[in-house]
Amino acid sequence: MTHVQGLPIAELADEFGTPFYLYDADVLASTYTTLRKLLHPALELYYSLKANPNVSVCAELVDLGAGAEVSSGIELRTAAAAGAKAEHTIFLGPGKSDEELRACVDAGIRAIVVESETELRRLDRLVAGRAPVDVLLRVNPSFSTKGSGLSMGGKPRQFGIDEEDFPAVVAVAAGLPGIRIRGVHAYLGTRILNHADIVHNTAGVLRMADELRRRCGIELETVDVGGGLGVAYFENEADLDVEAMATGVNEVIAEFAAAHPETRLIMELGRYLVALAGTYVVRVRDVKRSRGETFAVADGGTNHHMAAVGIGSFVKRNFPIRALSSVDESAMSTYTVTGPLCTPNDVLGKRVQLPGVEVGDLLGVERSGAYGPTASPVQFLSHGYPAEVLVRAGVAHLVRRRDTAEDILDRQLLIQR
Amino acid sequence: MTHVQGLPIAELADEFGTPFYLYDADVLASTYTTLRKLLHPALELYYSLKANPNVSVCAELVDLGAGAEVSSGIELRTAAAAGAKAEHTIFLGPGKSDEELRACVDAGIRAIVVESETELRRLDRLVAGRAPVDVLLRVNPSFSTKGSGLSMGGKPRQFGIDEEDFPAVVAVAAGLPGIRIRGVHAYLGTRILNHADIVHNTAGVLRMADELRRRCGIELETVDVGGGLGVAYFENEADLDVEAMATGVNEVIAEFAAAHPETRLIMELGRYLVALAGTYVVRVRDVKRSRGETFAVADGGTNHHMAAVGIGSFVKRNFPIRALSSVDESAMSTYTVTGPLCTPNDVLGKRVQLPGVEVGDLLGVERSGAYGPTASPVQFLSHGYPAEVLVRAGVAHLVRRRDTAEDILDRQLLIQR
Repeated sequence: MTHVQGLPIAELADEFGTPFYLYDADVLASTYTTLRKLLHPALELYYSLKANPNVSVCAELVDLGAGAEVSSGIELRTAAAAGAKAEHTIFLGPGKSDEELRACVDAGIRAIVVESETELRRLDRLVAGRAPVDVLLRVNPSFSTKGSGLSMGGKPRQFGIDEEDFPAVVAVAAGLPGIRIRGVHAYLGTRILNHADIVHNTAGVLRMADELRRRCGIELETVDVGGGLGVAYFENEADLDVEAMATGVNEVIAEFAAAHPETRLIMELGRYLVALAGTYVVRVRDVKRSRGETFAVADGGTNHHMAAVGIGSFVKRNFPIRALSSVDESAMSTYTVTGPLCTPNDVLGKRVQLPGVEVGDLLGVERSGAYGPTASPVQFLSHGYPAEVLVRAGVAHLVRRRDTAEDILDRQLLIQR
Repeated sequence: MTHVQGLPIAELADEFGTPFYLYDADVLASTYTTLRKLLHPALELYYSLKANPNVSVCAELVDLGAGAEVSSGIELRTAAAAGAKAEHTIFLGPGKSDEELRACVDAGIRAIVVESETELRRLDRLVAGRAPVDVLLRVNPSFSTKGSGLSMGGKPRQFGIDEEDFPAVVAVAAGLPGIRIRGVHAYLGTRILNHADIVHNTAGVLRMADELRRRCGIELETVDVGGGLGVAYFENEADLDVEAMATGVNEVIAEFAAAHPETRLIMELGRYLVALAGTYVVRVRDVKRSRGETFAVADGGTNHHMAAVGIGSFVKRNFPIRALSSVDESAMSTYTVTGPLCTPNDVLGKRVQLPGVEVGDLLGVERSGAYGPTASPVQFLSHGYPAEVLVRAGVAHLVRRRDTAEDILDRQLLIQR
């Protein structure tokens, strides 16, 4: 891949400088629309901004019809700026501030996902004297999932209300005039690559929701079944079979929808919607040999792409890395791709096969549209946040400018002697 | 610890908001001056800004006499703003940009630490027609160290020139009119807690430097012996015996200095100088039970303090965490301290003993002055960089203001439809 929508990446690198994150709106669109077409229409798709909160990335997905799932006051503002309607926005996350809760109430978002009895009481106090606020109660299910890097059911967690304690919390809510319980939320895992696990989780959440409705008499205007759809990053992984996933999920959804025609269903999607659309582009500053290993030292590293260090594993595994300048695959060689940090852990790729790499060449870490700079220590060595570029309809747009020295220095205050 | 230099931390939290990093200038000073008094006067102490690049923290150490070791153009500017003299500043790191090299030359810093033959040639071209620039050649030693979390000798590395290849690179340098080799640099490991390892490393680097001098005829105006002095974070660790370390290092230094009275010696210190002076202060937003475990959900987490997830180990180990509001140690209980992120990995402390914690209480993660926010994904969920406060002579100063929503949003550009 040396071009995006016909534009040479080398020219984008010259125009916007390196390192930068490059997003392809066509890939965003095809990922979303493929999924949208496959999945049961009763299932609304909400984009989890945490995966990539860039306002223009978010706007692409909102334009396509996605709702917004946000987890901070600034994400709430980002979603609104990207065009997400309040009635298609939900807010979740532990430890919400009063300001964040108030902003949700003021904006009139679809629902606040409440994570504990304490939060429920706090929210009730905040809305005193106003119309009651729509709430989903997050449940920490008693059942668990398989196949997920970070499984979230059946364990003690900071998230949600234990399924066992749910009736007691509903009883509390009944006495809180500011709270209107509209349904439940559950999230069972992340980076799931086996379609059967998604089906299993969806069925489990819907079964649990129905059971909680019967036991506690809550309304089920909305059930958020979570998501956790994964993307294959590493050699031993295969992409989710999305057709098989949709077939299984749709069966479960159809059955539930038939019994509960009044209930709206939400699936949350972060990584899955944006990962494939993003490439982290770096330029090689040095090529050197050390004790039999060849290093390509790039101008950006794990300061912008911490996930490349390896996720969900104690063994270093490589994200897919490609040469973006040269495509002469006749002369492949092995390179360890490192960044500008002063730590041996600053490795984007360990022993990667690449065409002959020279100083000045561009390399791309692919499938990097999710959990990129926002999930990385961008201030390390004061390098700052990289530029972000979105290519849309054949035109490259700067969608986040690179941090300048002033951005980093002007917020610091030198104590005068 | 509920006070810093007599100031109640609760009042600082009200004044500056939470979460924030709190630094104690008295601890910075006592750490530096203790070490300075113990170590041989021929050993110059350079502060590695990467550990904590806050300009006011840096200024404290510069005022006390420390030189500056920087690794990016912005760190170079930070050091200068903090009062570090160019002749007491060195720049090192792989993949330096042309702009960074030029800034070093323009500033006339003491030495650029060159990491490869390619960089040497690039620097030579950049200074064409100007006075030659002072360079230390970084060596990737053939010997290794024990006891370090990240050992750096004897292995293939992106850093420096393999000891085996050193003579060939010196021969190249002899033909480069822009380069004046002034000595060597080596760095053998980080977070070293056993004093004997520091002594072993220092002796090894000095022996290697002398040998390279004899074999290659280089001048030894300066030898940078690295550093890597550690700080105990976890229960099974003990602090470095700094007296024993100094005794051993001083013997080695005295011997070398007697043979090489013309050589200046540098020790680099990052973590050791700042870690103990810093506390990450968070406020509890929720206290909840889940399946037998009690969670204290705070307003800041691993987004500001990634090291708390656990470093140098695959098992979660806790940084020291203290209650800053209450000191009623009669009613200790067990809490898992989490932050505001939507991941179960957002754990500041797993099953920590604390006095009864209530919503609104302040907790402090201690020994957190090094590799704090700059080494953390501060933009995760768009929460942004926390405030930093330095207490100096009994007065609390804001030394970095908290990121605002505008800081995060204004640099993003929404593509107009």
